[in-house]
Amino acid sequence: MSETKVSAGLFITLEGGEGSGKSVQCAKLCDRLKQHFSELLTVKTREPGGSPGAESIRQILLTGETDRWLPVSELLLFYAARYDHWKRTILPALERGGVVVCDRFFDSSIVYQGYARGLPESFFDAIHKIFDEAEKERCFVPDRTYILDIDPVEGVARSNRRISSVEVKEDRFERINMEFHQKVREGYFDILRKNSARCKKIDASRSIEDIHEDIWEDAVELLARHH
Amino acid sequence: MSETKVSAGLFITLEGGEGSGKSVQCAKLCDRLKQHFSELLTVKTREPGGSPGAESIRQILLTGETDRWLPVSELLLFYAARYDHWKRTILPALERGGVVVCDRFFDSSIVYQGYARGLPESFFDAIHKIFDEAEKERCFVPDRTYILDIDPVEGVARSNRRISSVEVKEDRFERINMEFHQKVREGYFDILRKNSARCKKIDASRSIEDIHEDIWEDAVELLARHH
Repeated sequence: MSETKVSAGLFITLEGGEGSGKSVQCAKLCDRLKQHFSELLTVKTREPGGSPGAESIRQILLTGETDRWLPVSELLLFYAARYDHWKRTILPALERGGVVVCDRFFDSSIVYQGYARGLPESFFDAIHKIFDEAEKERCFVPDRTYILDIDPVEGVARSNRRISSVEVKEDRFERINMEFHQKVREGYFDILRKNSARCKKIDASRSIEDIHEDIWEDAVELLARHH
Repeated sequence: MSETKVSAGLFITLEGGEGSGKSVQCAKLCDRLKQHFSELLTVKTREPGGSPGAESIRQILLTGETDRWLPVSELLLFYAARYDHWKRTILPALERGGVVVCDRFFDSSIVYQGYARGLPESFFDAIHKIFDEAEKERCFVPDRTYILDIDPVEGVARSNRRISSVEVKEDRFERINMEFHQKVREGYFDILRKNSARCKKIDASRSIEDIHEDIWEDAVELLARHH
């Protein structure tokens, strides 16, 4: 498969809650793409960050006191970083006909800051409108988004490096966390319902290999459609 | 004049191009307010910056390569800082019935990034809508904006610490600068036309004292209306 065959480029994002295994799946997908389609430009990236400007914003987003940023400022910082990432890393690769695989993109903002922390949908619509108008050449919406779904109790246990059979304690702090992670999961379900053509739900409770095969099968079909 | 008499607070901003003398006028206005209305909380602040979070964004906005930030990212960074400044410095002072005098606010973004650098008005409308919806208690639009107007040739000469009679060289770089500063001036004229109730044009080609008297007279009248 030559670059000219996929000249439009293919933008794939992976989404999901804690412990859903996004990063591992991003790496496996990219490795196999590089192996099978050696002429194809494959770019693996992640948010927040993914370009020098976005990384510097990441620094001020992820350091300091937990209440350092008010939700609206945080939202604007995430999107300032995202625009830099989009224009300087993702879009140039797509314009060269490449495949970009990104660990989290705007669905994460919608789910974490919108569904879980209460920012209204209209805020995202307003910023997406700016992105839309600023970019005439290509829409910044991914061609495909894999939403790795896992029960948050299992996911959080996994990401805490505990075996999944360990029961999560029912103290208040854990309970609040669970409510938060449950909201994240429901947010992703809602995104799946609203974007059924773009988003695919992937059962992430299975083995790494099984999950990868689902993603691989779909991604290869998508690439074929770009012929 | 006691705090209770101005319980709604008064938000004043100063705007203008290079060398229009905004900072000097902010200082003079605040000093005289403190002198004449000693019970009144008077806060002098400026953008970008004005709160710890906003100052950290200022750092990444104003350092590094000149092309470090794409216009859309820059816009979002400015407004991320502005929201922090608004919520953590300006609004608390207004809620205590104070007078806040701010050197530059959103009109600067509209003029410099909009009129002068070409970002469409719709981008500002979209972000202002977010600010509006996020803040139910009080509108973030200033009660009064003084636009200090000066011919850019004179203003730039002033800010370059040259005497105003020195003629600006007609080389390309200077010319581009002048075109830019002219756009800034015209942007402010447009803002004056569209916001005649809020904005007042101040002839900044005069002496510091004359300019100050104009501002003082209007500000005292505004304060009286808050009785």
